[in-house]
Amino acid sequence: MLPPDVHAELAVLLPPEALLTAPEDTKPYECDGLTLFRERPSAVVLPETEAQVVAILRVCHAAGIPVVARGAGTSLSGGALPDPRGVVLSMAKFNRILSVDVLSRTAVVQPGVRNLAISEAAAPHGLYYAPDPSSQIACSIGGNVAENAGGVHCLKYGLTVHNVQRVRALLVDGDAVEFGGASLDSSGYDLLALVTGSEGLLAVITEITVRLLPKPQRAQVALAAFDDVEKAGAAVGAIIGEGIIPAGLEMMDQPATRAVEQFVRADYPLDAAAVLLVESDGTPEEVEHEMGEIRRILTASGATSIRVSRDEKERRLLWSGRKNAFPAVGRISPDYYCIDGTIPRGALPLVLRRTAEWSREFGLPCANVFHAGDGNLHPLILFDANREGEIEKTIAFGDRILALCIEVGGTITGEHGVGIEKLSSMCSQFAPDELDRFLGVKNAFDSAGLLNPGKAVPTLARCAEFGRMHVHRGELRHPELPRF
Amino acid sequence: MLPPDVHAELAVLLPPEALLTAPEDTKPYECDGLTLFRERPSAVVLPETEAQVVAILRVCHAAGIPVVARGAGTSLSGGALPDPRGVVLSMAKFNRILSVDVLSRTAVVQPGVRNLAISEAAAPHGLYYAPDPSSQIACSIGGNVAENAGGVHCLKYGLTVHNVQRVRALLVDGDAVEFGGASLDSSGYDLLALVTGSEGLLAVITEITVRLLPKPQRAQVALAAFDDVEKAGAAVGAIIGEGIIPAGLEMMDQPATRAVEQFVRADYPLDAAAVLLVESDGTPEEVEHEMGEIRRILTASGATSIRVSRDEKERRLLWSGRKNAFPAVGRISPDYYCIDGTIPRGALPLVLRRTAEWSREFGLPCANVFHAGDGNLHPLILFDANREGEIEKTIAFGDRILALCIEVGGTITGEHGVGIEKLSSMCSQFAPDELDRFLGVKNAFDSAGLLNPGKAVPTLARCAEFGRMHVHRGELRHPELPRF
Repeated sequence: MLPPDVHAELAVLLPPEALLTAPEDTKPYECDGLTLFRERPSAVVLPETEAQVVAILRVCHAAGIPVVARGAGTSLSGGALPDPRGVVLSMAKFNRILSVDVLSRTAVVQPGVRNLAISEAAAPHGLYYAPDPSSQIACSIGGNVAENAGGVHCLKYGLTVHNVQRVRALLVDGDAVEFGGASLDSSGYDLLALVTGSEGLLAVITEITVRLLPKPQRAQVALAAFDDVEKAGAAVGAIIGEGIIPAGLEMMDQPATRAVEQFVRADYPLDAAAVLLVESDGTPEEVEHEMGEIRRILTASGATSIRVSRDEKERRLLWSGRKNAFPAVGRISPDYYCIDGTIPRGALPLVLRRTAEWSREFGLPCANVFHAGDGNLHPLILFDANREGEIEKTIAFGDRILALCIEVGGTITGEHGVGIEKLSSMCSQFAPDELDRFLGVKNAFDSAGLLNPGKAVPTLARCAEFGRMHVHRGELRHPELPRF
Repeated sequence: MLPPDVHAELAVLLPPEALLTAPEDTKPYECDGLTLFRERPSAVVLPETEAQVVAILRVCHAAGIPVVARGAGTSLSGGALPDPRGVVLSMAKFNRILSVDVLSRTAVVQPGVRNLAISEAAAPHGLYYAPDPSSQIACSIGGNVAENAGGVHCLKYGLTVHNVQRVRALLVDGDAVEFGGASLDSSGYDLLALVTGSEGLLAVITEITVRLLPKPQRAQVALAAFDDVEKAGAAVGAIIGEGIIPAGLEMMDQPATRAVEQFVRADYPLDAAAVLLVESDGTPEEVEHEMGEIRRILTASGATSIRVSRDEKERRLLWSGRKNAFPAVGRISPDYYCIDGTIPRGALPLVLRRTAEWSREFGLPCANVFHAGDGNLHPLILFDANREGEIEKTIAFGDRILALCIEVGGTITGEHGVGIEKLSSMCSQFAPDELDRFLGVKNAFDSAGLLNPGKAVPTLARCAEFGRMHVHRGELRHPELPRF
């Protein structure tokens, strides 16, 4: 519960419908997309203007109340999990696109704008916003910036950090700052990149300038089937190795395609051990040339069938399977847990093999869906939370996959962030000297630790307690693991 | 002079030829590419191994001796200017390319490796390293990372920060850290981006993993002449506005082309008020298509002549003029001062007009050479340091150009960094709250301020003394200036 004086101060600043404290009103905010973790906040505030956000931050800062900013609540790592002592600062009403500038190819948007809405607003000018997380219909650009979101096209077009040019943000005490600007470079340390992906720990974003790209004249996707997962993994390496950067390069294994097919009816090959989706975009000439090369390499890599989209409708249908993989799995299992880790491309076959072994060992089915081109895995562990011990087994299985990601030289996140979920894995990923730099940066922005406390960066004490040894850079690599 | 005990400790760590203290030995290190500023260091050390760098940092840290890391010394902002109390840490002997990995398309290199040497090593695999500062024959990749260097191709391929995947660095006390990794994203704050462009203030880089790109199958450049500088500026906007991202889009005005032509004999049109160089790269089909569009737009924008390179030799010749613009100007004037600022593309005509007016007012010729596509200006102010008062007039002229860059919504650096040169301009660019975040970040890495002291980020006290008002975000915009 909020201290009465803080409640009174907030009540002066906000209309009654923008300050929620009753349990039935705050309950919808108790978790985000990672439903394994739940906390009820003391209050939820829904400001409409930057001046209101400034005032809220000033009140909370003076009273030492934690503040957790929230966009659309689609985080898969618990980034928007409330603090029980604190306030959830919903940016949902900051949903205006302030400008689309064709000459500079940028849009200025408020943080609550949905990812897809930016591309819709830019479409009349032949432009679009490239990063496209699977949740792009729902997720907000503010959340995308906070988590440095990716998507199926980030192999060619980069993550959020590569597509954001400027942010305006409020510091914990309500003072406004701006990082980045109208131009590619900016003077001083790159605090724009620092704030991007900082998971709400450094500042509250109130305005964003994103880069827009010209919409490719043409795009085509190939769906290739393989009778063996490792062959599909090798085909990924072969495509990249020949100098092609596809607009998208995704892989799904059989459990995933079967779940998806029931849901989207895209005519996926259900007998295939794995499928690849490989997209080419650009001018018609370029796509034709590149798609020819892709077909050749897929065939040489042992694809048992290749289907290339003939028109935009078919292209969208083929992608819809991939984009709906998570909800599709949600239909066949009471619960699922989506893991997000990244590995060097060469380690794909090994990691897939281990995951399959562990799936049998834990007795938990696992569907693999991932951004194969950049090595970003999304194993979906299927479980039933109502069955005794399954949550614990699921978490142990997930931890094992992430530990393997680190051991093969990868990292514990690809695009979902650390949040509350992977705090302990950070102790394995980073050495104390490195974590100390993270903590120093946090201290430079929010020395009292009021912004999104307990997320993203573990304290050294927590790591010591957790007892996890630092395995980064392979010093503690399992002896049988090859180097990648 | 170094304290005798520090000298003795360093002498134990390093062979005699790697510890320079005699004035005749340290003199070559008294400045970098910005020769307006000179300082003699107490000593210059030239370690060969990371263990030696660790030991040097430990000795200096314990004794409170400043350390200025130096690559090839080509900085144009005084980034490697020595501290008179300190040690210059030359990384010149760290000149090995450790690996080129074709599958992951990366190279692991030491910081003293020359920029161009990376592309040379990658060439047998059909790969190259994209950022290409004009100094790429000489400049080192460590310096490129420290300054977040750009180049003529960064419009399409990004700055250094977009092409670096991992750095290994030593903290001020000699402890090793690594940021970034094998994959696109990394967990925790983006300290890789933070260290990139931090101008030697946060850590000493000892190893870098850069991204390599497939060499475009074909590249072609168009040289277009205009009888009016503003028309050329408008053509830049028209090309970008039509959805083309050229591989390079450069502009030179008449004083620049005339200086260059005497030097490279590329047959530049000397009667043109300005020329544009517009490059297209990709597959042969793509280049043919894009170059057709570029020709069409240039013609519609009023180009008086267009010449398109017929082969690789002619392409290189056309570029050689641009790449040698600085030395060419150096031949026609006793001294020149290269300004580096960035503006929104729409402000180009205004800024060019003002620069021409001020050139007349100060009586100092000015040649304009710039990365027009991304709005990065390089006015070269021609002066004679031996003429009474010309240095002061030159600096005042340069300051005025940078102030205008900020006022039109741009920034005081494009790719050369802040260094010692633009410390005061930082006070205009950033608000105290923003500078305070910069200082906090510095504090998280180097609380004693021993790494490259007095560069990049001014203290708030200095800004107060300097008395410059903060004009960022247009609050103090000149009333007659339009918004961009």
